[in-house]
Formats: sequence, structure tokens, C-alpha cells
Amino acid sequence: MVNKLFCSYLAGFLDADGSIYVQLKKNETYKYKFQISPSVVFFQKDATGLEKIQKQLALGYLRKRKDGLTELIVGDRSSIRKLLILVLPFLILKVKQADLMLEILDKMETVKSADNFLEIAKKIDQYRELNYSKKRTVDARVVGIHLKNLRLLTP
Amino acid sequence: MVNKLFCSYLAGFLDADGSIYVQLKKNETYKYKFQISPSVVFFQKDATGLEKIQKQLALGYLRKRKDGLTELIVGDRSSIRKLLILVLPFLILKVKQADLMLEILDKMETVKSADNFLEIAKKIDQYRELNYSKKRTVDARVVGIHLKNLRLLTP
Repeated sequence: MVNKLFCSYLAGFLDADGSIYVQLKKNETYKYKFQISPSVVFFQKDATGLEKIQKQLALGYLRKRKDGLTELIVGDRSSIRKLLILVLPFLILKVKQADLMLEILDKMETVKSADNFLEIAKKIDQYRELNYSKKRTVDARVVGIHLKNLRLLTP
Repeated sequence: MVNKLFCSYLAGFLDADGSIYVQLKKNETYKYKFQISPSVVFFQKDATGLEKIQKQLALGYLRKRKDGLTELIVGDRSSIRKLLILVLPFLILKVKQADLMLEILDKMETVKSADNFLEIAKKIDQYRELNYSKKRTVDARVVGIHLKNLRLLTP
């Protein structure tokens, strides 16, 4: 059972050392040639702690990174939505990131055209500023050029 | 007011990205020539978030480090004790560090001899393993040698 005190604990954990973000990756097998990968990740040096948290949360999975860090990754849309709805009332720092994620997940449910897809890519661009992530190379501009070249966008 | 949900939030924050530790420093102005500096610290890239937390917590102070990180430092014994008593019921990962701190704070109240002081130094050594801190140079061994040379220890 996930009680409010645990939700609040998770909110603190996520605010301190978690990450809410969406990756855009080139992937020819997808309809619009780009894959949207949302995720919420908790990081720790020590796997034991995250195991306890994962067990209580009953969402996501653990992954040991090459640099030794352990990640608790919540990567499927339905789990991300569940998690964010649980922690949102208690977040202090990452409120915008969480709201933006929920907005993107909503838009992902209703993509009907390349134009819709490009709108999502533009939303994803907002993470650049929120998360101080400068190394993002695939952004809405790149997606836009590609979709335009494929003549998929409304002129 | 510090409510339980905020305590639980703080516990998550501290578990994820906080530090509970005690430094031992050479200081000739102190009775036993070493200073014991306990602290609980929260770290963040962005000062704004920690400001909000500090305001709600009403303990500790903010410090901007040279490397750009901001710290919320709770460094006086009475505030550390208050904070740990608030978060202890909700900690999942740093329970041992918190318990050890409270034990050390108790012992600090009742130091009556160099022998007592050395006992505290030995307790502090336990942080080395709990916090994976290898760069600690002043430890109980160093304190013991010094107090022995000063003929302060019970033979």
C-alpha cells in the first residue's frame, strides 16, 4: 500500500536526487521516425536502499549502471503517471517537471498527426531549461526538419 | 509548523542527497585539542529549492560552495537533534547514520574525561564505513595518540 507519508518521502527523494525527463531518439521503426521515451529515475550509490523503495513502491525496476550508480527507473507511461500523481501534492522543487511530464503523457495518448507529434517535441524542449540539460541533441527543430522533409507536416 | 508529511519529505530528501556526519578537527583551543563538528547537510545545484525547504524547516542556514552547489547546513547540536528526531521515523536509508549521530550528541553532553572524549572519537570512526568516506585523516587513533602524549588518558 502506498500511503501519504510514503508519497511525501518519495517526493523528497525525487526532489533531491531524482530526474523527470523525456528523451527524443531517432528510430526509423516508429511512425514519425522518432521515439519519445519518458522516464522518472531515482539514483543512489547503494542498491540496497533503492531495492527497499522499489519494493514498497511496486513500480519500475532497478538497473546497475557502468559507473557503479544504481537507478530505479520508472519508464512506462502508466507507471510514470501513477507515480507522479502520488508525489505531485508533496513536491517542492520539481513541480514544473512533473506537470510538464503529465502534459506530455496526455498529448502522447492523442497523437493523430505529424503536427501533433511536433507539438510534443516542442514540449519536450522545455526540459532543457528545467533540467539544465545542455547535451540534448535531438530537439523539436531536428524533428521538425525531418518531418518536413518527409512531407508529413501541414504546409 | 513542521507536520508529519513534511518530516517524511525531509527524510526522503536526506536519504537521497543529504549527509549526516561528524568531523574531527585538530584545534588547540579546545580542551582535548580536537574539535567535534557534527552536521546534517542537504545539497542542491539550485539554491531556490533549498531556500524554500529552509524556510519551512526553520533550522540551519544556506551556504553557496565554491563548486556552485548550495548546501543547507544544520550544524548546531540542538538543531541537529530536533531535525533527526523529526525525520527518524521516516528514514529508510540513513537510519544508522542518524542513530549514531544521536548517540554521539548524547555522549558530547556528558564528556568528563579524555577517556570519554576518545570513546566519542571511536564512535565517529563508525561513519567511515557508513558513509564510504575514505579521506578522513583525523580518527580515533590519531586522537588517542595525542591524548596519550599529553598524559590525559587513564593509563
